[in-house]
Formats: sequence, structure tokens, C-alpha cells
Amino acid sequence: MKNKLRFGLPKGSLQEATIEKMAKAGYNIQVSSRSYLPYVDDEEMEIRLIRAQEISRYVEHGYLDCGITGHDWIVENGSKVHEVGEFMFSKVSRKPARWVLCVPENSPVKTVKDLEGKRIATEVVNLTKKYLKKHGVKAEVEFSWGATEVKAHELVDAIVEVTETGSSLRANKLRIVDELLSSTPRLIANLDAWKNPWKRRKIETMSMLLKGALDAEAKVGLKMNIQRKHLESLLRNPTISQLSLEGWVAVETIIDTHVVRELIPQLKAAGAEGIIEYPLNKVVY
Amino acid sequence: MKNKLRFGLPKGSLQEATIEKMAKAGYNIQVSSRSYLPYVDDEEMEIRLIRAQEISRYVEHGYLDCGITGHDWIVENGSKVHEVGEFMFSKVSRKPARWVLCVPENSPVKTVKDLEGKRIATEVVNLTKKYLKKHGVKAEVEFSWGATEVKAHELVDAIVEVTETGSSLRANKLRIVDELLSSTPRLIANLDAWKNPWKRRKIETMSMLLKGALDAEAKVGLKMNIQRKHLESLLRNPTISQLSLEGWVAVETIIDTHVVRELIPQLKAAGAEGIIEYPLNKVVY
Amino acid sequence: MKNKLRFGLPKGSLQEATIEKMAKAGYNIQVSSRSYLPYVDDEEMEIRLIRAQEISRYVEHGYLDCGITGHDWIVENGSKVHEVGEFMFSKVSRKPARWVLCVPENSPVKTVKDLEGKRIATEVVNLTKKYLKKHGVKAEVEFSWGATEVKAHELVDAIVEVTETGSSLRANKLRIVDELLSSTPRLIANLDAWKNPWKRRKIETMSMLLKGALDAEAKVGLKMNIQRKHLESLLRNPTISQLSLEGWVAVETIIDTHVVRELIPQLKAAGAEGIIEYPLNKVVY
Amino acid sequence: MKNKLRFGLPKGSLQEATIEKMAKAGYNIQVSSRSYLPYVDDEEMEIRLIRAQEISRYVEHGYLDCGITGHDWIVENGSKVHEVGEFMFSKVSRKPARWVLCVPENSPVKTVKDLEGKRIATEVVNLTKKYLKKHGVKAEVEFSWGATEVKAHELVDAIVEVTETGSSLRANKLRIVDELLSSTPRLIANLDAWKNPWKRRKIETMSMLLKGALDAEAKVGLKMNIQRKHLESLLRNPTISQLSLEGWVAVETIIDTHVVRELIPQLKAAGAEGIIEYPLNKVVY
Amino acid sequence: MKNKLRFGLPKGSLQEATIEKMAKAGYNIQVSSRSYLPYVDDEEMEIRLIRAQEISRYVEHGYLDCGITGHDWIVENGSKVHEVGEFMFSKVSRKPARWVLCVPENSPVKTVKDLEGKRIATEVVNLTKKYLKKHGVKAEVEFSWGATEVKAHELVDAIVEVTETGSSLRANKLRIVDELLSSTPRLIANLDAWKNPWKRRKIETMSMLLKGALDAEAKVGLKMNIQRKHLESLLRNPTISQLSLEGWVAVETIIDTHVVRELIPQLKAAGAEGIIEYPLNKVVY
Amino acid sequence: MKNKLRFGLPKGSLQEATIEKMAKAGYNIQVSSRSYLPYVDDEEMEIRLIRAQEISRYVEHGYLDCGITGHDWIVENGSKVHEVGEFMFSKVSRKPARWVLCVPENSPVKTVKDLEGKRIATEVVNLTKKYLKKHGVKAEVEFSWGATEVKAHELVDAIVEVTETGSSLRANKLRIVDELLSSTPRLIANLDAWKNPWKRRKIETMSMLLKGALDAEAKVGLKMNIQRKHLESLLRNPTISQLSLEGWVAVETIIDTHVVRELIPQLKAAGAEGIIEYPLNKVVY
Repeated sequence: MKNKLRFGLPKGSLQEATIEKMAKAGYNIQVSSRSYLPYVDDEEMEIRLIRAQEISRYVEHGYLDCGITGHDWIVENGSKVHEVGEFMFSKVSRKPARWVLCVPENSPVKTVKDLEGKRIATEVVNLTKKYLKKHGVKAEVEFSWGATEVKAHELVDAIVEVTETGSSLRANKLRIVDELLSSTPRLIANLDAWKNPWKRRKIETMSMLLKGALDAEAKVGLKMNIQRKHLESLLRNPTISQLSLEGWVAVETIIDTHVVRELIPQLKAAGAEGIIEYPLNKVVY
Repeated sequence: MKNKLRFGLPKGSLQEATIEKMAKAGYNIQVSSRSYLPYVDDEEMEIRLIRAQEISRYVEHGYLDCGITGHDWIVENGSKVHEVGEFMFSKVSRKPARWVLCVPENSPVKTVKDLEGKRIATEVVNLTKKYLKKHGVKAEVEFSWGATEVKAHELVDAIVEVTETGSSLRANKLRIVDELLSSTPRLIANLDAWKNPWKRRKIETMSMLLKGALDAEAKVGLKMNIQRKHLESLLRNPTISQLSLEGWVAVETIIDTHVVRELIPQLKAAGAEGIIEYPLNKVVY
Repeated sequence: MKNKLRFGLPKGSLQEATIEKMAKAGYNIQVSSRSYLPYVDDEEMEIRLIRAQEISRYVEHGYLDCGITGHDWIVENGSKVHEVGEFMFSKVSRKPARWVLCVPENSPVKTVKDLEGKRIATEVVNLTKKYLKKHGVKAEVEFSWGATEVKAHELVDAIVEVTETGSSLRANKLRIVDELLSSTPRLIANLDAWKNPWKRRKIETMSMLLKGALDAEAKVGLKMNIQRKHLESLLRNPTISQLSLEGWVAVETIIDTHVVRELIPQLKAAGAEGIIEYPLNKVVY
Repeated sequence: MKNKLRFGLPKGSLQEATIEKMAKAGYNIQVSSRSYLPYVDDEEMEIRLIRAQEISRYVEHGYLDCGITGHDWIVENGSKVHEVGEFMFSKVSRKPARWVLCVPENSPVKTVKDLEGKRIATEVVNLTKKYLKKHGVKAEVEFSWGATEVKAHELVDAIVEVTETGSSLRANKLRIVDELLSSTPRLIANLDAWKNPWKRRKIETMSMLLKGALDAEAKVGLKMNIQRKHLESLLRNPTISQLSLEGWVAVETIIDTHVVRELIPQLKAAGAEGIIEYPLNKVVY
Repeated sequence: MKNKLRFGLPKGSLQEATIEKMAKAGYNIQVSSRSYLPYVDDEEMEIRLIRAQEISRYVEHGYLDCGITGHDWIVENGSKVHEVGEFMFSKVSRKPARWVLCVPENSPVKTVKDLEGKRIATEVVNLTKKYLKKHGVKAEVEFSWGATEVKAHELVDAIVEVTETGSSLRANKLRIVDELLSSTPRLIANLDAWKNPWKRRKIETMSMLLKGALDAEAKVGLKMNIQRKHLESLLRNPTISQLSLEGWVAVETIIDTHVVRELIPQLKAAGAEGIIEYPLNKVVY
Repeated sequence: MKNKLRFGLPKGSLQEATIEKMAKAGYNIQVSSRSYLPYVDDEEMEIRLIRAQEISRYVEHGYLDCGITGHDWIVENGSKVHEVGEFMFSKVSRKPARWVLCVPENSPVKTVKDLEGKRIATEVVNLTKKYLKKHGVKAEVEFSWGATEVKAHELVDAIVEVTETGSSLRANKLRIVDELLSSTPRLIANLDAWKNPWKRRKIETMSMLLKGALDAEAKVGLKMNIQRKHLESLLRNPTISQLSLEGWVAVETIIDTHVVRELIPQLKAAGAEGIIEYPLNKVVY
């Protein structure tokens, strides 16, 4: 019988982004509303769509060989798994998700110490209890089924909620008291699967391609003609071809997307010509 | 008066994919809900959106000069048209659509012979009748207006249905008895239009660009620095530039997307550096 | 305190396209339904989403430092602002929007002169009044809150409406009598902000990157192997590399998307091989 | 084993209306996206949702005991079934659906005779062929997979299409040449099921309740106090109660919804007081 | 030729509610996406869907015989029309819409006097100018194309906006400074149409039926058995039938929906039995 | 300051049904997407929309005076609250929700005893643990974040899931092993609020009206003329009026919706005439 790698992807809000990244890595996945199992164009792989909160649990118990989930849920579940790699999925902010202790803007609570004897609502009950214990604070922690931000104003004294850019907290007039955990997506493997050479090689390949695809999102290719004298101050390690015009070279390089905003005006000011920026699928160093 | 090419595109489930492929080929089409006729940025072309099932009929009768439709419907309609080219539209599976004879998993029917005197529901009545005749089986064939898969369980004895990955058949607990036809999208032309030099040249150009765009979907560009000694075993016909470092070369090549999954780990293992994968719009050999 | 550039983007129908173009320029914007202010990954910038009709007004008064809006609304509002650059956003037609005077197909009105004493509905009341005055025509102009095209048939005698491809006017059986204004999107700046060196440099950089991104949409990169003798007649200023095969060269060039439809068949006819078209992010000359 | 009545309801555009009418008749049906079989709160009934075009076929062959479908499809399929009753489902127009022969407004075709040798597109191929035969006209009839109205203008010479208010034909600039069939929804039964006393009683009960519910949609209850002398000229057969005020009576009656628009102003003019109109669920005479 | 009444209904946010109320009045209207003109089951009527802001203008000029629009827009447009009746459409709050002058909660503006020399954004420019003039305040009034509430915080000094329950103003942290106008929906008629007896009678009938339907929304029918001695203190003018049980009567009455919440507990406390509440379609006194 | 009753309604899947029932009871609630607090047309009430799972917790702690939630979540949370009344919300099935222990159809598990040492996924962890303890079974119970039914097939050994008609379980090929709890919606009150006379009276009134509205959904009014001799066998306690025709009476009665299906055919068979069924808003005995 053929070897199969059982791979768990996060269902729900991260689903579309994950499937898009997997496609960039080279694995095309099709979720059908009529079929239970997503199709993937790799006969050695089986995909399962599972809530991000649960993936680490099923990887730990071996129902899945590997999966993608957040660092936060691995910690919250206390799952014993092998962490293969860290990935950054959000193209816009490229910031990690942060679990923060929040109170209403006008709350008298200034530090975690002020929560002694109070009530806190959160989706990460274990994380919050551990945090309180570390600070020697006794408070009631209750599981929140959703809309946690709204509760901070009248149903509980504080919340522990996740935020990326902080804009939703500001919109709800909440103030951050402390940060409990910073979390990024991880590729994790079951400990036994990681010892199986075929599965490990398959997981490592996938990890390399996914990393190459994600790195490529933050980089672009750049080509231009420029005077050789400006090279050193502006570009690091470009590929250089001689041009017939004295003192000029054709250069090509890979640079960070965020640098482009600063660099192109400088190149233009230095007299560079025919500046071309092109997209990349993968970058593997 | 200006020459015009009347071109039929399949309305409905394939519509979005077809318009996207046409854009990649270089023809931007805009379907407006307020206007009957789609806009295309080519003044020598007129687009009509028509159900895939009917396009071959209208191309045959000359109401359209050419069109894109499935091989299956050309055969079902028995249309006399010129077939210009074959295209593969689905990026995910890249498999042809298959019209298959199906029965419930637990049906006693094992071969088409067991259907003597039974009832079969299908959207392709002519195809099915021809198939039964070839096998010397007499059975009643009725046109199905939709939801054919559900009918197999209690309304008829068997169905002839289309499938791509087979996942919908499995979800409906159906078993494939036989395959009647494998079908891919085709660009077809009216026989008279094909004799008209202006129209033929226009159709052939479009076919070449569309083919170039679809081929490019399955390929990527790859650049890297690598030791010359590894070249032969890993890459076929790359473009090679000498590097200053002894024994190393910069190479660039075009390869199949599906090979990338295997190749990049091998290149990495062979010590390749700065591996860059970039997307292509068109590949014309 | 940090310098901030307040930048107004058009809300509504142009919103998605504008945000997509900004992302191509290198500024990732995220509009959150839960937060009032869009997020942008540039700490020196603040985004406001405002109706295109109003942006020039708020730029003029200094509530915004700069903004993107149509030439039509700058004129309609009579706003005194600095125009930094002109951009073409629509990928499909790449035609400017035109404000035209329209009447029903079967109306006796032939020229603007025939509208003496009549009623005209439009969203651009000032523009229309100025136009009538220029032609010495006295007619009543009333503000239309929407669905202007439908009104031309029974509620008023003529309308002044915007059109891009003309297809909506045809669908509503309207005839164009005259064109009042042709309009494209503009990047505009407040006059004081333009005198501020920090703001001006920031706006100019953004303008350069946005222009580079939009220019790149209409261009592609092309690579191929071709006989040197065909070069001159087919390609302008390509980058040429010698090939080992006598008389053949490898060339690379940037060309207009619209030329590709004509050029690739010609290159193919001239025996070019391995023609590769690849996409560009930005082109800055 | 329990007796069961297998009942087919029309899937698609009529589905929601049919389920609503069934609820008014007293049968609550719940269509679940997760379950194949709709739930009905009658343990002696099993619901199947099937396209209206196919129901008569499956009732004829005994896969269903009874079903609701249009008279048109019973005729088109030539199904031998027992017709239990006729129902009017559309609350707005309360007009039957009409299958009409249409041509473009400016077509030279005046009568069916002018279609000799022409092409006609329609969803009701058998109906159309029979009609042409009756008029001694030979023309090609082709099955239309949808958007038939649009085809009349350039793909075929005429169409046979269904219309209720005629507004869609007018919007498509089509002219009605002749009417082939007028159709209303029918409750039909399989001939054997109709001979089974248990099934027949069950079907007849359902028919009576459904008819009562539909009749009630076109009627309302009316109560008022009015002078006895006005009774005869204004109200037919009301229930009358004596009031203490000399010459006045309290009356209650059931009248047609469409009469209310005329009647209430007349009653008011005749000095009626405290006019109350109330809704009805069922009316069974 | 048949007499026709041209009737304008408000398009957009009020459209669905208006069509529902018209159906309750006895006029079934069907808006088709495929047809320009809505269908109404009254051959003497023609419906036009027009923005509420514009209806009074077209009624004034005679393009429409009558229409339903808000009192606010009649005043804003300064239209000379006959007001036939006032209606309350919102079932939930049953409060009139109020146009109010608002500023941010923390604004120093306390009265309209504080707006001297400031800028105000609003959709009702004429109304606002008239209001300012009345108070002897000079301020710039600019037309707002939408999202007016958001502008109050940074783009202008104050806004004039419409509110029903005030909840949206509170959510945007705005404070009401003054009320300019309270507005309810009105049925208006063109002055000439009102002089035409046929049209006037038609409009008056419609007004009576619409009023009857709207009044019925705020009332219900109530039946019960109760001791005669409690009647006087609890129910006004009920219809009374003698019961066989000494001292008990069967009563029926029509009461306000809002009274039911208080009344039923009191009736129950007084020993009433078999209390039945039933819905009404129309109430015409 | 005015007395206020803080009332929690279940957010999410039950929200629309609950608001509709509250409207029938006489409390019109409007949920605005722009405002945090729903509007209710009772100034003595404040509505909060909270997940059904959490309502009993916030009622227990006094953040809410009362709320509507399921019996299941009161038990799961172990909340100490006063239960005011039980309501049946689902019009279709009118069956309670059942929490059941399920396994795949082909699982060897026959009774709860077979789950010793196994894993069970559920949303009601406490309920499940208590159930296992009662049966002396030791098994791991893990919280399921959703899609529990799918997990039974490969991620855990059994699930505890809620079902109404059982159709979703059948569709997922699951078998019910045992029922843990049958649950219906309840109106609950905080223990202190229940001691407050004003609040208690307010809650009891609401409970009475809500019960009256829900009871009315399962009943209808019936009127007819019938021969007196048939009365006893067919109708219980109708209101009877003498008719002029010898032996005939006019009767009116309130009966269960489910009886109507059987009764109307019997009444018709007994010669009843003018049978009218009308809807009820509330029934309070």
C-alpha cells in the first residue's frame, strides 16, 4: 500500500490564506462543498481541515502526521509535538498575533495585580491561568464562546484576547494591560511520524517549499541599468553584466519589498534607467 | 465595414475560468450585468456567452465563427466543426472530465450488459444511446434536468454523469461501471469561417496565445547558482552564465510546476544557492 | 512627534481597485469592518476612505494632505489643489471616463442648442451649468441622486452622465449628443502640504511608485532565442546575449501588453524559439 | 410496516413557494442542506425534491405516489397520471403561465405559417413539434438549455418560451405570435397509488387542505357595523347580528381580496363603522 | 384609452417596506430585475421606483400623478404638491425621523450660535441654510455624499443628519445640539391630478386602504370570556355576547398592540378565560 | 432613575427565531449593525445578545436579570438560577433538542460501557463527564470547537452531539448509543432579581405573553356551519350560535394545528359548510 502523509490545515478564518500559500508552495488543494475530503494534487498526501484550536491535539495523538496551527494553541493545549518551522502568513501586517490582557479604557485596573478576586473572560483559559499563577494573582477565568471584546465593558472585569494590528481593541475602547504571548503559525509533526524517514523527508520538503513561497512574498526581483560608481552605496551583491556604454552596467538583484519604497527613488536620483521590478514565486537560499 | 470575429464562450460554471484564461492570453473581457454584450478590448472581435452545451451547434450553423466548448458536447450534438486546439482549463487537477456509467455502490449491476431493460438518466442522451447500441444493450435513456447523482439511488437504475476527481461520486456512494468518454475543452471553428483567411489567421493567433497562456500555468522560471558538475544530472537545457567563482555557474531554466516539488530539495542538497522561482505569463515553443 | 501624511482614497466603487493598485505600489492597506481607520503598513501615513466626489474639497481645505480622485470632481467642485499626477486605473478598457450629454435614441434633440428651456438631470450640476452657459443655452439643471440613465426616458429631457465603454448607454437606448469632459484619476495635493519638503518628497515617492506599478500593468517582459537578422524589424532596443549557435541571439525586452497579440505570431513566424512572457510589478524609466 | 406516501415537490424556483403553501395547508417541511431528505412533520409521508420538469415522469413510473408539477410538463412528457387538482401558486399575478411562440419585435414573421423551414429554440421540444404539426409547418426545433429569450435575436428565428406577466418578453423586445399552452400547477397521482384506498384518502385530504389554504390567500374576513338598508346592495350572504341601535346590524363575511379595494370605499360611503379586515388560513366550502 | 395613475414609490432603503405596506393595502407589486417597470395587479396604475429625495420634484412637475416620500424631502425641495395623508411605516419604533444638528460629544459647540464661521456637512443643504438664516448664523454648508456621521469628527465642525432611534449617533459619539425637522412619510399628489376627479378618487381610495393597513399593524383583535363586573374598568366599547353562566359574558374588541402588554396580565388577574388575540389586515373607522 | 430589566437573548443560530417570537409576544426588537445595543420598544427593558452557552452564567452572576437559553447549557454550566418557564421555539418539528452519545454506524461500540479508556469529543464536557461517572466509565473527554460529527469517524472514538430530527446524524452515518439529556429553551431569572417585586412582575408578564404567543403558533381558530347532531363527536367545547335553518348551528372554536389535518376532512364528510380557519397571535388560558 502507498505511503500517505495525513496533514491537518486550519479550517475557518485562516483556511483560504493557508490554501493559497500551499498553492504557492506547489500543492494545489480544492475544497469541495459536496465532498468531505479536500482534493490535493499529491497522491502521497491526505488533507484534513480542522479548527486551528484542535490541530495540535490530533497531531499529538497521531491522528494526523503533521499540521499547521498557531504557536498559541500548541501552548494552550500543552501538546507534545515536533515543531518543524515557523511561518508568517499575513501579507499585510506581517506581525505576529498577540494575546493581550485588556480592560476598558477607563478601568481602574493598571497592572495584572489589580485583578485579584476579579473575573476574566478568554478563549485561552489555560494560558491565562498559568499567567495569573506566575504573577501570584487569584482571579476567576471563564471560557468565552466569542465576542470577547464586547464583554469587557459589562460582563467581566478583564479579557485576554488576540490582536494583530490593535485596531479592533481601539474600536472597542479597550486598553492593553500586558502581553501574555506572541504567536505565529507553525508547521508541527507528530513525534513518531518525525522518526519515520519517509514522512520526515516529505514534511521537510513541504516545509522548505512553503518557506520559499512565503519568503518570496516579501521579496521582489529588480533589474536596471546603472552607473557602476553608484553600485556599492545602493545595492548589495547584485548580479552584474557589462554594458557597451562606458561606466554603465546592467544589474539584477533580489530585495525586500519594504526596501523598494525607499530604494527606487534613490536609484532614480542616481540616474538608474529602465528599472524593472518583477514578482517571485519562491526564494530558497 | 470592419471584419468581425464572432466568438462564443461558455456561460455558467466555466465562464469565470474562461474569461481569466482569455485575459492571460491577452484579451480582456468585461461582462456587465447592465449590458447584453460583453466588452472585449479587441475591436475585431465580438463575444457571446452561451451555454457550453449549445456552442458547437451555433458554431456549426455559422451564427458564431468559433467558440470554446467541451469535446463531450461536440460529440453529443454531432456537430460538424473544425477543431482548432485542445486546452486544459482546470489548474488544480489538470485532468480531463470523464462521462461515466454509475450505479449505487451496492447495486447488482457489474457491467453494461446488466442494464438490459433498465432505465438510465443522463444529460448526454445521444452519447448514452450510442454507447448502449455499441454494446448491444437495450435500455431506456431519459434526459436528466439536474441532480443526476441523487437519482441513481431510487429513481432510475443507473446514470451517466460527468466527473473530474471522482469525489462527488464517492460522496454520493456511487460506483463507476464504465467510462463512455473523456473530454477536454476545445477551440472549434465554423467550417466556412475556417476557409476565410482573415478569420482563420485571427483564430489561429488566439489559439496560439491561449495555448501559450495555459502552458505557462504549468511551468515556472527557475534561476540559481550551482556547481557545474551537478548540472547534467539535475537540469535539462538550462541557459548558463559563467560565474567568477571557479566551477560555479549561474543557470536559468523553465520547468514543469509539478517537477519543482521534487527538484528544489535535490538542488538544495546539491549545494545550489540563491534559488529563485518566478511566474510566467506565456510559454510559446 | 512623528510626521504624518494624511491621504484620502476614494470609497465605494473605486475602493477595491485603488487599494489593489496601492499594494502593487508597495503600500499594503487593510480595511477592517470593525475599525474606523484603515491600516497601512507605513507609519508615516494615515489613510481616510472618502467618497470620490468629496476628496478634492477636503484636500483643498487641508483636512487631507493629498488624495486620489477623478479630474471630473476636481473641476465640478472647483477645488484649488496641486495636481501631482495622472493615473489610469481600469485594466480592461484603459479608457478615460467621459461625461456626456445624452438623450433617448428617438429624441428630436440633435445638439445642445435644442435644449433651450428644457430640463437636464445630472450628478455634475456645476459642470453642466458651465457647459450650457458656454453654448448660450438656458435650461434647468437638477441634481440626480442616481439611476440617471433611466430618467432620460420620461422624467427629464436630457441627462449628463458618465460612461466608460458606452455599453450602459446603449443598453438604455440613449444617444450621445456631446461630450462635456474626459476624466482620469489624479493624485492631488493640498497647496500648503506641497510646500512642506517632507510631505512633498513623500507624495512624490508615492506618485513614482504608483506610476511604476500602473505602467507595469500594461507591459510584460519577453525573452526568446531568435536569429539576429530578424531583430531589427521586430524588436526595439532589446538586451542581447550571444548564443553559441551561429547567427542566433538570446534577447530580452519589455513591451506593451497590447503589442504581444500581434508580436508573438510574428516572432513565431520568424522562427523564434522558447518565447517566454513574464509579468512585471513595476516599470520606472 | 407503516404505510408511506412518497410525494414529489418541485425543486428550484418554485420550491420556496410550494413549501410555504404546504405549511399553510398544515404540513411543515424543513429542507436541510446537510441531509438528503427533507423533514416533514407527518410520519406517513416522504418528501422528494425533484425538478418540476421530471416529476410527472417519476409519478407515472411509480417511483413517487404523487407530486406537484405544472400542466405544461405533464403534457410535454406525455405522462399518464391521475390529475387530482389544479392550484394557483403565484400570489401576485394569479395568472397561469403561458407558453408562447415569440419573435423579435421587428421580425417579418406574423403567423406560425411564416416559420416554414426556420429554426425554433425551446425547452418544450415535444409541445412545439406537436404544435407545428397541427399547423402543417415544417421547422427545426432545438432544445434550449436556458436564456432562450436572448437567442431569438440572432441564434434562431423564433422561440417558444414561458411567460407570466409578459414583462420579461417586453424587456427583451420580443413579440408574441401565438399561444401554445396555458399552464397551472397540478397535484397528480400515480394510477396504481390512486387505486390504493389508504393512499387515495391521504392524497385527497392533502388536496383539500392545500386548496383550502390557496383559496384563503385570495380571501379575507370582513366585520363591520352597518345600516341594514345598505346590506343588500353591498354584501352577499353575510352573517348578521342585531345591534341595539335601531336599523343597525353587525355583519361578518368572507370576500375576495380583489373586491376589497372597491368595497371598503363603498362601505365607508354608506356609513359603515368599525370596518375590520382579518386574514384567513383556510377556506373550505 | 384607459385612465392610468402614475405612482412613484421610494427606491432603496424604504422600497421593501413600502411594497409590503402596499400589499397589505391590497396592491400587489412585483419588482423584476429583468424588467424596467414593476408589475402591479391594478391595470389602472403604473408604478415607478424613484429615490425618495426626488419624488416630490417629479410629482410637482406632473411626471408622476402621486407618490410616497418623506416630509423632509418635500420641504428640502420646496415642492408645491398636495399632501393627501401621513403614514407611519416603521413597525418597530413608530417614531418620526428627525433631522438633527450634531457635533462630536467633546465639541465646544453648545448651540447653533457657536457655529458662526464654521463648516457643516449635510444631505439637506436647503433645510440647513434656512435654519441657519432663521438663527442669524453665517456658516458654510456643504453637500455630503454619504457617511456624514464620520465626517463630524475631523472633516467638518458639525453635521445635520437624520436619526430614528438615535443609536447610530451614540455609536459615533455625537451629541445632538438641536432638531431642525421631524419627518414622516406622506402620500402626495400633483396639483392638477388632484383636480381630476378620476385620479383624485383613485388616490383617495388608495390612501384609505393604506391607512387602514397601517392602522391595523398597531392593533389586534381580542376575544375572551370574562365576568361582566370587570368589563367597565378594563375594556372600552367591546362587543358583548351573553354566556349561559350567570354573570359571565363573551367579549370581542380591537385594541392597540402596545396596550396588550399591560392588559392581558390585568385580564388574567381579573379571572378572564380563553383569551385569544388575533391579527388584523385593516382597520377603517 | 427608571427601573430597567436587563434581558439576555441568545445570539447566533437562535437569534432570529427568538426576536420573531418576542415580536409576537409584543416586544419589537431591532438589531442594528451600527449600534452595540439592540433597540426594544419598551423603555423599562435593556436587551443584550449573548451566546446561548453563556447566558445562564451571566444571569447567575447578576450581570443580567433574566435571559432565554437552553436547559442543556444551564445544566452544563451548573448555574444557580430561577427557571421561570419552558418554551418550544421550533415551529417545524416542535421536538426538544437531544444530546446523544454517537458512534459511526459500523463501530463495535454498543453501550457506554464499551467506551472505557476511549476518547470522546463534545461541546458539553461537564455533562459528558457526569454521564460517564454515573455509568462508572473512565474515558477521556475533550472539548470540540465545532464540526463534531465529522470527528467521530477518525479523530475520536465517540461524540456527544445535539440533534433535533436526527437527519444530520444519519447524513454523517452515525448511530445513537444513548441519550444524555433532552433540552428545551427556558426563561431564567437571577435569584435576586426574582425577589425584586418590580422585576419579578415584569418577567412574569413577559413570560405569560411569550407563552401565549408560542401556544398560538400551535393553534388556529375555526368557524363553520354544521348540523348540531355532529357536534359532540367532532368538536370539544365550541362557541355555538343558533342558525335560522332547523338543526344547524354556527360554531367557533380553537384547535391544535396538528388536529386540523384530520378534522377538516371529517367535518367536510359530516356536511359542514363554510369552514374558515384563521390565525391567532396569542392564546392565554
